[in-house]
Amino acid sequence: MARIKMVIEYDGSEYHGFQMQNNAETVQEELEKGIRKLTGAETRLICAGRTDAGVHALGQVIAFDSCASIPAERWGMALNSVLPEDIRVRFSALAADDFNPRFHALRKTYSYLIYRKKERALFYRRYALCSTENLNIISMRQACDYLLGRHNFSAFCASGNSSKTFEREVYACSLESTEKRLIFKITANGFLYNMVRIIVGTLLEIGRGKYQPEHMERLIIARDRTRAGPTAPPQGLYLHEVEY
Amino acid sequence: MARIKMVIEYDGSEYHGFQMQNNAETVQEELEKGIRKLTGAETRLICAGRTDAGVHALGQVIAFDSCASIPAERWGMALNSVLPEDIRVRFSALAADDFNPRFHALRKTYSYLIYRKKERALFYRRYALCSTENLNIISMRQACDYLLGRHNFSAFCASGNSSKTFEREVYACSLESTEKRLIFKITANGFLYNMVRIIVGTLLEIGRGKYQPEHMERLIIARDRTRAGPTAPPQGLYLHEVEY
Repeated sequence: MARIKMVIEYDGSEYHGFQMQNNAETVQEELEKGIRKLTGAETRLICAGRTDAGVHALGQVIAFDSCASIPAERWGMALNSVLPEDIRVRFSALAADDFNPRFHALRKTYSYLIYRKKERALFYRRYALCSTENLNIISMRQACDYLLGRHNFSAFCASGNSSKTFEREVYACSLESTEKRLIFKITANGFLYNMVRIIVGTLLEIGRGKYQPEHMERLIIARDRTRAGPTAPPQGLYLHEVEY
Repeated sequence: MARIKMVIEYDGSEYHGFQMQNNAETVQEELEKGIRKLTGAETRLICAGRTDAGVHALGQVIAFDSCASIPAERWGMALNSVLPEDIRVRFSALAADDFNPRFHALRKTYSYLIYRKKERALFYRRYALCSTENLNIISMRQACDYLLGRHNFSAFCASGNSSKTFEREVYACSLESTEKRLIFKITANGFLYNMVRIIVGTLLEIGRGKYQPEHMERLIIARDRTRAGPTAPPQGLYLHEVEY
């Protein structure tokens, strides 16, 4: 028996999120089906971050145990040969027997893509929030700075959160801006349920001038979800990287 | 009765090409269904270039007649409100009564996108040819130069072509190269059936070193389809612009 770890990419458009559910196609189901095709064994895998329906991954990490004779570094190619084309293994390797991609993650990075042009927006409809509204990028960047550090992020947590504490530490937070795109990127030791999407919804309200950048700090202090912005749609969100 | 012209964009992934067919969803069908929803009238439209299944458009041009009271420049917004999200009107205006987007076109430009990285390729699977092979860009550019000017392009024409002459004039032809992408762009007074895709298939053979750049010139002279490259897949092709 060996524990295999993999870094995977997927287009979440066609899936009801990562995790196994009744009567709904999930990324996990496709991966476990693929492993079964290769080994004949029923396998349950663990992932680093359970992404929601429509959310994508560039660097999701998974782990599972297998008795198959496939060498760990060949597992990626083998699994790719039986996976649908919207899920790809980027890397596979042998992991420690007790490796848990979720609990051992030290830092996770999510990115959120906003496409800002009318032209060609339809090609981004599954992969970005498409918005041509005027946004004050400087205000949005100032608001980002308040997120840095260790805070209680209750204001940015949807109901259904399963963790015991609302405290997280944000290590990095940036907003890259080009003529066509805005890319919000945030790195933390962990994230609450819908935290990135609620932060993006709040940043958009600040960008529109509905609130000043200091609104972000007030929200963190107030811990009141009802005063934060709406949850931004899933298709702009990417699980970018998980570090151990 | 007024003739309306429109510039439209579409994601061809879900359609069996532009033109009306039996028992298959087409872009034309969606557009005519939309016009019917707005006006109640059965309308037949004409397009500038009948794209194949999976081929996209950034600047397709269409025209149709309508007795509806919708002002020509408002037609775009009106139609967008009833079209599926993978077809968008970019512009609408009144046209001359005899305007024919196909026969009056002076220049058409197609582009073909090749995505060259393994990373994130799955997000391009509907929108590019994904290939990580080594290609000699300099050779490919030299081959492009042979396409310029007026030639008989029989070697680059699939069976099923409906035009009487195989002569076309290529006004511009370029290959833009970045780390991630190759963008082939070609402007001509018209194109034969599958011409751009066969040219791209031939350019790829030259890029791989199977042939020298002069191969392109020899093919034009020989007029022999069997010696040209394979037809490149549809998902990389975009009807970029039509000029009148």
